[in-house]
Amino acid sequence: MNPNTHLDATHDLALCSWVASANDGATDFPIQNLPYARARRAGTDEPWRIMVAIGDQALDLAAAVLAAEHTDAQTAALAPLVQGDLNAFMTRGPADWQLVRESLSRALTMGSPAERALAPCLIAQSALEFALPCTIGDYTDFYTGIHHATTVGKLFRPDNPLLPNYQWVPIGYHGRASSIGVSGQTVRRPMGQTKAPDSDSPQFGPCKRLDFELELGLVIGTGNALGERIDMAQAEAALFGMVLLNDWSARDVQAWEYQPLGPFLSKNFATTISPWIVTMAALAPFRLPFTRPAGDPQPLPYLDSAANRAAGAIDVQLSVWIETAQMSASKASAVRLSSSNFSEAAYWTATQLVAHHTAGGCNLQAGDLLGTGTLSGPAPDQAGSLLELSMGGKTPITLPNGEQRTFLADGDGVILKGRCSAVGAVALGFGECRGTVLPALAG
Amino acid sequence: MNPNTHLDATHDLALCSWVASANDGATDFPIQNLPYARARRAGTDEPWRIMVAIGDQALDLAAAVLAAEHTDAQTAALAPLVQGDLNAFMTRGPADWQLVRESLSRALTMGSPAERALAPCLIAQSALEFALPCTIGDYTDFYTGIHHATTVGKLFRPDNPLLPNYQWVPIGYHGRASSIGVSGQTVRRPMGQTKAPDSDSPQFGPCKRLDFELELGLVIGTGNALGERIDMAQAEAALFGMVLLNDWSARDVQAWEYQPLGPFLSKNFATTISPWIVTMAALAPFRLPFTRPAGDPQPLPYLDSAANRAAGAIDVQLSVWIETAQMSASKASAVRLSSSNFSEAAYWTATQLVAHHTAGGCNLQAGDLLGTGTLSGPAPDQAGSLLELSMGGKTPITLPNGEQRTFLADGDGVILKGRCSAVGAVALGFGECRGTVLPALAG
Repeated sequence: MNPNTHLDATHDLALCSWVASANDGATDFPIQNLPYARARRAGTDEPWRIMVAIGDQALDLAAAVLAAEHTDAQTAALAPLVQGDLNAFMTRGPADWQLVRESLSRALTMGSPAERALAPCLIAQSALEFALPCTIGDYTDFYTGIHHATTVGKLFRPDNPLLPNYQWVPIGYHGRASSIGVSGQTVRRPMGQTKAPDSDSPQFGPCKRLDFELELGLVIGTGNALGERIDMAQAEAALFGMVLLNDWSARDVQAWEYQPLGPFLSKNFATTISPWIVTMAALAPFRLPFTRPAGDPQPLPYLDSAANRAAGAIDVQLSVWIETAQMSASKASAVRLSSSNFSEAAYWTATQLVAHHTAGGCNLQAGDLLGTGTLSGPAPDQAGSLLELSMGGKTPITLPNGEQRTFLADGDGVILKGRCSAVGAVALGFGECRGTVLPALAG
Repeated sequence: MNPNTHLDATHDLALCSWVASANDGATDFPIQNLPYARARRAGTDEPWRIMVAIGDQALDLAAAVLAAEHTDAQTAALAPLVQGDLNAFMTRGPADWQLVRESLSRALTMGSPAERALAPCLIAQSALEFALPCTIGDYTDFYTGIHHATTVGKLFRPDNPLLPNYQWVPIGYHGRASSIGVSGQTVRRPMGQTKAPDSDSPQFGPCKRLDFELELGLVIGTGNALGERIDMAQAEAALFGMVLLNDWSARDVQAWEYQPLGPFLSKNFATTISPWIVTMAALAPFRLPFTRPAGDPQPLPYLDSAANRAAGAIDVQLSVWIETAQMSASKASAVRLSSSNFSEAAYWTATQLVAHHTAGGCNLQAGDLLGTGTLSGPAPDQAGSLLELSMGGKTPITLPNGEQRTFLADGDGVILKGRCSAVGAVALGFGECRGTVLPALAG
């Protein structure tokens, strides 16, 4: 695959929309993006509907489809979207995804005859509330951030930071699907069992080292039957899109519980994702070659392909922001804690994760979510967690208003952002993934 | 709780059924059991229906409900069962579970006027095929078998078999829900990445150390909201029932991949459960006190209760059987590999697993499955896996027909069984949980 192979008219740099806000260079949602969410007017009990972001507006697809005429193929492809079922749409596969993308792109382009019919189907995004965009049957969290793995490995195992399997196996584990929420989620500080190094026995109480993790989430579009595999050649087509993902973590609970079977309660109390699924089609202009540092082992054949070497990586510039309760009260803006880039942070690509996940025959299903793991850059200030930024809680961070943090305090809001840009392409983004910490329940 | 507190007329030792096979002392399904499955006539495309086992028959509840008259309360409780939705029935809670149990018990008792109407609603179990009994949103696997943890710990970490957290934390991890199948499942030998100790680099190929794990699975009936907890006092009422569970494991893949985040591809290619959910109500006569060996730490308060100490354990006698392809061809009977008892094997009780799982606010949902972990007894021949029985593959087991096994061969059938007996109670069982190994896919 050449990085530019999959570009088509929907990526055209010159394409503008009759929705004026989509033509603002700062928007995350130009007409070249067209991400999907499930939403309704905030505060109503309207049914959840699939919407597509365009500028600061959202196109209600159930209304939009009624307002226009379609070919039979379009009608079939759009049917699950009209019914509010993104999983069923994803199951239909890449040809239908592309058909709908092209239809939406044409209909929203400046000068489209559809403007008159579709304009009434727009709702301001600020007037919406969001549900999870799809049903997430299973959630897997990988550990592709090699700089994160090395830094955290030093904290948990000073003598053995990066384990021998790391450069061979895309390390991952199964996460909890039920506790995944959408941006805006409030996250109750978990209670948990922890043990102080100088204590003979553990205690049970509120987590004292609550953290975020800056990740991306891959959304599976088409899965595989149990016992079969999705190989590297097929993996790209199995991916529907990506979201931002905050893997909230209770570090003190994690340190005590994680051996030998991995993190459990330290991670399963909440995971927050951004509402808009940015499609792989929209991300096509931002593909980069995937390379390994000189001297590192090359991937085994089942994790290698020419296409992956040519364009397996994706240039997504990521950032984490904090808005403390004190900042909110004083109307101060959120402060950026760090930034990194997916393509520099990840040791494995999206297609490698799919190929590895199914290598033993495990069945993926439409809507399954694959977290990338914490995407920390190589520099200390590019770390995607407070554990790293505060050096294991030893070095507090001082915010502009004088507040200090080693880990999260009650009332803290954490915001993840992601943005893609490339020469010859219109920049686009992921919107935001926001979550706010609530105090622990008493007792 | 006194072990006998929850016994009622449905447990009466003298109770007999007009379904004659239910009165045979050897049946797993006397009228005191009444477990639920989802099934249909084998080889048809009939809709899946909820059925209750009675002797060697199954009562089709959709048909049975139509055939009899009910009070309004019964009608409401039965409605989700008529619709084939066991999750919705479980969500209704223990009062409805008990109402239906009492109704079924009365209707199936010898001399019941309902016999004439219900007899046509029976189907021989041998004529059925089964689906998973409910939708399993999330699957968690615990590690409560302390003898298993110690023996396996010695193989993976000779210097450090039982980690310091084991006696304090009910160790568990999230498993893969999508690959759970019902008894009769064929399990394709997984491909995977393994590394020989004397090799510099890993290789990818068919698993060479394929194993079973003898477990029980707890089925959640009523869950909790995200951010809240189910404490020890509430945990018993949250449990709907239990199944047998085979946690198929690729030991060579596991050894190479499991650090630092736990087992992943080595476990997610298949998990098999028995079709009939034996309810906690049916298991009431088999409760035992829960005690810790002298000198072991007592559970922290959030994992302790007087009721749990009095009757937290459950006497389930378990066994694993093998039927190789050669045995099948020669019509030889399956051979028992080992047997153990849940109450002796598990270091934590069912209610402790629920209380721990939700201690940090993780939300459980109706139908969620909690594996106990491998239930090996204290003696070497009570081990619930081949890894233990063959001492890490070093000592082959010789079967009566002369075949030897260290790990599973293609064509091997593995059968789990479970049976409860107690003085003053009618013995009952779980039916069987069977799975058969298929060869790896080429490539």
